[in-house]
Amino acid sequence: MRLQISGVEGLPEVRPGDDLSALIRSAAPDISTDCIVVVAQKVVSKAEGAVVDLASIEPSDFARRLAASSNKDPRIVELILRESRRIVKMDRGLIIAETHHGFVAANACVDESNVPEGCATVLPRDPDRSARALREGLGCGAVIVCDTFGRPWREGLVNVAIGVAGISALEDLRGTADRSGRALRSTVVAIADELAAAAGLVMRKAAGVPLAVIRGYEWSSTPGSATDLIRGPETDLFR
Amino acid sequence: MRLQISGVEGLPEVRPGDDLSALIRSAAPDISTDCIVVVAQKVVSKAEGAVVDLASIEPSDFARRLAASSNKDPRIVELILRESRRIVKMDRGLIIAETHHGFVAANACVDESNVPEGCATVLPRDPDRSARALREGLGCGAVIVCDTFGRPWREGLVNVAIGVAGISALEDLRGTADRSGRALRSTVVAIADELAAAAGLVMRKAAGVPLAVIRGYEWSSTPGSATDLIRGPETDLFR
Repeated sequence: MRLQISGVEGLPEVRPGDDLSALIRSAAPDISTDCIVVVAQKVVSKAEGAVVDLASIEPSDFARRLAASSNKDPRIVELILRESRRIVKMDRGLIIAETHHGFVAANACVDESNVPEGCATVLPRDPDRSARALREGLGCGAVIVCDTFGRPWREGLVNVAIGVAGISALEDLRGTADRSGRALRSTVVAIADELAAAAGLVMRKAAGVPLAVIRGYEWSSTPGSATDLIRGPETDLFR
Repeated sequence: MRLQISGVEGLPEVRPGDDLSALIRSAAPDISTDCIVVVAQKVVSKAEGAVVDLASIEPSDFARRLAASSNKDPRIVELILRESRRIVKMDRGLIIAETHHGFVAANACVDESNVPEGCATVLPRDPDRSARALREGLGCGAVIVCDTFGRPWREGLVNVAIGVAGISALEDLRGTADRSGRALRSTVVAIADELAAAAGLVMRKAAGVPLAVIRGYEWSSTPGSATDLIRGPETDLFR
């Protein structure tokens, strides 16, 4: 198998209400049904209006106290709490939270980079729905909405999938045989995360490339959902 | 930026003592200095003789008791304990351990797939050294030795880097500006893991493709080390 992964430049600054599919089609007119299009959360959130003016936020006492102890803007902390279903860990100025979608990430994915001063983005309300709408608007094979997450135990951020349409997020190899004919165990691969990571290589934040197109990957078309990537409490030792 | 990622087929079954560089050069004669070659831990371990005959292992009482409660082979549990510097979590039949290198993974990366019955592989003793030797033997730009790891909170395995040569494992964007001119914070990207994940898309275990070549990625040549990917205790909330 041979993949081609291209970063797409030339997407204009995205504003709330913009038709993101139309903007992407203009920047990448050759997208077709054999493409997987990977789109950064940031531009999806902007198009959907998931941008919060920090001046509109009144921090609670709890948020103010947390902010003071973690050297953060109290309004950002308040926004993190609003975006959180559950705080997984809070220590040394860091807040690791589970979003309402079920994703576990630093600051519940509240992000101030690449947005106007005094604003922050939050995740799209339903990133799978965002991915489905983009897939329909683009006429491509699959769409992955991605964000960069940190990890326990390993340094550095990696691009991961938070919304998926047109492809299964996981590939289940259990029951298939290895080269020596032995059944593979524990081999469910997070394909959507590997596709997002691959796209991350050409989507560097500072470069303003929020979009990548992957060609040559073979997959069976299926609705797909990034919620398949969320580990259930019953198998999660690190809740 | 446009990347090409190719899976390399036709590598023969690798045996202890084999010259892995020579085998790879035969299977992929067009590898050059602009290539990043990603090699699965499994074939590196086999070539280096990091394959353990389970018949040679005498499980301790502790390993026997653990094995009984987790439905594992006591010799495998003994091998996991030998490969571990520290048990991070042990629950519900799962053992998450820190290897002597500092990698945190299920079963300390002891693996029975794609090896002869009655054997298991362990990680190469020094995967950076393995990567350096392969880089020299192949005359390519960079080498990444990879393995598939599970993650807390997210389902599915992803391919990650455990050995690196010729490229920095991390790209530090702190201090660079975003599109609006604001300094990016917390933006250290785990490039080697994203490269490994991208390679994972064409290196499916069952397909017997333990090798991928990435072309078109731009980087500054530097010795590099996968130990840069190991999060230190001072920033790790999930030790």
